[in-house]
Amino acid sequence: MDRSPPAVTRKLLRVLDGGHEFPPPIWMMRQAGRYLPEYRATRAKAGGFLDLCYTPELATEVTLQPIRRYGFDAAILFSDILVIPDALGQHVRFSEGEGPLLQPLTLEQLVDLDASSALDRLAPVIEAVGLIRAALPTETALLGFCGAPWTVATYMIAGRGTPDQAPARKAALIDPERFSRLIDLLVTASIDYLVAQIDAGADALQVFDTWAGVLDEAEFERWAIEPMRKLVEGVRARRPGTRFIGFPKGAFGFAERYVAATGINAIGLDWTAPLAVVRDVLQPRLAVQGTLDPMRLVVGGRVLEEGIDAILETLGAGRLIFNLGHGITPDADPDHVTAMVKRVRAAGGRS
Amino acid sequence: MDRSPPAVTRKLLRVLDGGHEFPPPIWMMRQAGRYLPEYRATRAKAGGFLDLCYTPELATEVTLQPIRRYGFDAAILFSDILVIPDALGQHVRFSEGEGPLLQPLTLEQLVDLDASSALDRLAPVIEAVGLIRAALPTETALLGFCGAPWTVATYMIAGRGTPDQAPARKAALIDPERFSRLIDLLVTASIDYLVAQIDAGADALQVFDTWAGVLDEAEFERWAIEPMRKLVEGVRARRPGTRFIGFPKGAFGFAERYVAATGINAIGLDWTAPLAVVRDVLQPRLAVQGTLDPMRLVVGGRVLEEGIDAILETLGAGRLIFNLGHGITPDADPDHVTAMVKRVRAAGGRS
Repeated sequence: MDRSPPAVTRKLLRVLDGGHEFPPPIWMMRQAGRYLPEYRATRAKAGGFLDLCYTPELATEVTLQPIRRYGFDAAILFSDILVIPDALGQHVRFSEGEGPLLQPLTLEQLVDLDASSALDRLAPVIEAVGLIRAALPTETALLGFCGAPWTVATYMIAGRGTPDQAPARKAALIDPERFSRLIDLLVTASIDYLVAQIDAGADALQVFDTWAGVLDEAEFERWAIEPMRKLVEGVRARRPGTRFIGFPKGAFGFAERYVAATGINAIGLDWTAPLAVVRDVLQPRLAVQGTLDPMRLVVGGRVLEEGIDAILETLGAGRLIFNLGHGITPDADPDHVTAMVKRVRAAGGRS
Repeated sequence: MDRSPPAVTRKLLRVLDGGHEFPPPIWMMRQAGRYLPEYRATRAKAGGFLDLCYTPELATEVTLQPIRRYGFDAAILFSDILVIPDALGQHVRFSEGEGPLLQPLTLEQLVDLDASSALDRLAPVIEAVGLIRAALPTETALLGFCGAPWTVATYMIAGRGTPDQAPARKAALIDPERFSRLIDLLVTASIDYLVAQIDAGADALQVFDTWAGVLDEAEFERWAIEPMRKLVEGVRARRPGTRFIGFPKGAFGFAERYVAATGINAIGLDWTAPLAVVRDVLQPRLAVQGTLDPMRLVVGGRVLEEGIDAILETLGAGRLIFNLGHGITPDADPDHVTAMVKRVRAAGGRS
């Protein structure tokens, strides 16, 4: 399959490939989500949350909903970062109000999980990628994704989300050799999974390291940078030129090193990023994505406009993908999203 | 009272005043805490947690315990950042396992709290400062402290700690005028409180902005930097030369601007700070404090030694106060603290 021609027509890919676009391409993390009434309706038809991820038609439907409503420049596969542990054999369920709950396994048990059939279990997700690509407008980029090994490991070890993922931090410090085997297992499984997403039609891949911000410098190097470097290298060894967006949340102090070591095409940034530093230090090296506080989308109005304008004014002259600094929250008003898209797309006329 | 002579004998103050000390002075955030059996014994004698803060003899006792055991270079007043809302009339209680619970009040009600008698209610805390200073060895610095207005406000509005203090973030965006009145109220009350601590014998003041890391750039400027600037200025207007340590946790991207705008003498840093950047960008301007991941203290052994050595090697040639990047956790072994103090103090001989 020749993936070059879409790069010309898809704005977001032009930015990942080194181009400058203004107004910038725009999409939102968690754009297929509970803030949308049509999502809630589809979600109600599925059994559990993972059933939604594992039913290609439903996953396709929710992926397409925000594209229909807002015409974002990118769709992102509807799935969850925890399908990897689930596919590896650590049972995952989502409990209303409690978040994810994973089968309690020790680190010793986790490293013995069998990666060989993980990809088979993820077949429905890969099927969804193909269905989504076929249904998307030509100009819309399709992003595949996975969780970064560190972040996925934090859930596998704690069995759930915790305030600072202390169980995994402790395990990594106490038994780095065994923890490293778990990370390697996740790198391997993630490479297979991402390659399959590319082959099914994903244009680029985002890797979410949501819990990167609980690691100190040496641990960040070891558990955030190094696995991401291997992941990017591993995918590109099999699918040369694959485009990556890395998102090491809460770790702005290490962003420059992360970028230099991993060879990603764009870096996702949360709302604690200082915009002038992003412009001066990061944008000359790669595209940047994000920084809008999702709370501004909840509040809307002038508060939202000021947030948008600050980003466009400081980062608009460089390579930018407009996005939030984290996922849109369920309490956001869909009309505020409409206003955001309109303002970003009108920016060319205002500047 | 002439406060100059102690500056000569107290190592930590020499660093705050612009000097270089190696091995660096050392203390720990939350050094009087649950990891110590003698603390738990005293705690059991008090009724609630706030009774411990409001009983000068008990607060003095727990403040002195880690000094007796480890000979730290600084003691820090045993109290809590939420004594300010409590003194302002918003009832606070600490529930085992749940953390702080504050009387539910709306922003409208909070701005009407009466600051005029707050200092009277804090008299027992101020009395403790005097008792502690009298009991401390001459060479030990005494730190007073308060919570930063933003962080205190997040608890006042949410009524408790939350994963990202969304209620206060939302209130600040929706009603900045009224939120600003709450912040001003806290600045005023905090200035009175800190001046009283200085007059009672505190050598320097640490301001904890534990929730600074949930603010975007514009909001950080408005709710973290500006109130801190007013706080420092307000105290120094009444007590010239007062030494400040600011600790805007989770906001490394904004540290440089925070330092430049507030005029603090030292900045506290959590463990997501990149050490070489700290050395090159921050240390030439002021003293730096912290960065050791408290989890390394829990694990101990080589993991602790490597964390200590990385800090001493990268930051030891500049102005440094050795500390953790956040409070010591209850599960830390007191013997690991002994090992840490020993290693830091032996550093002069090793380098």
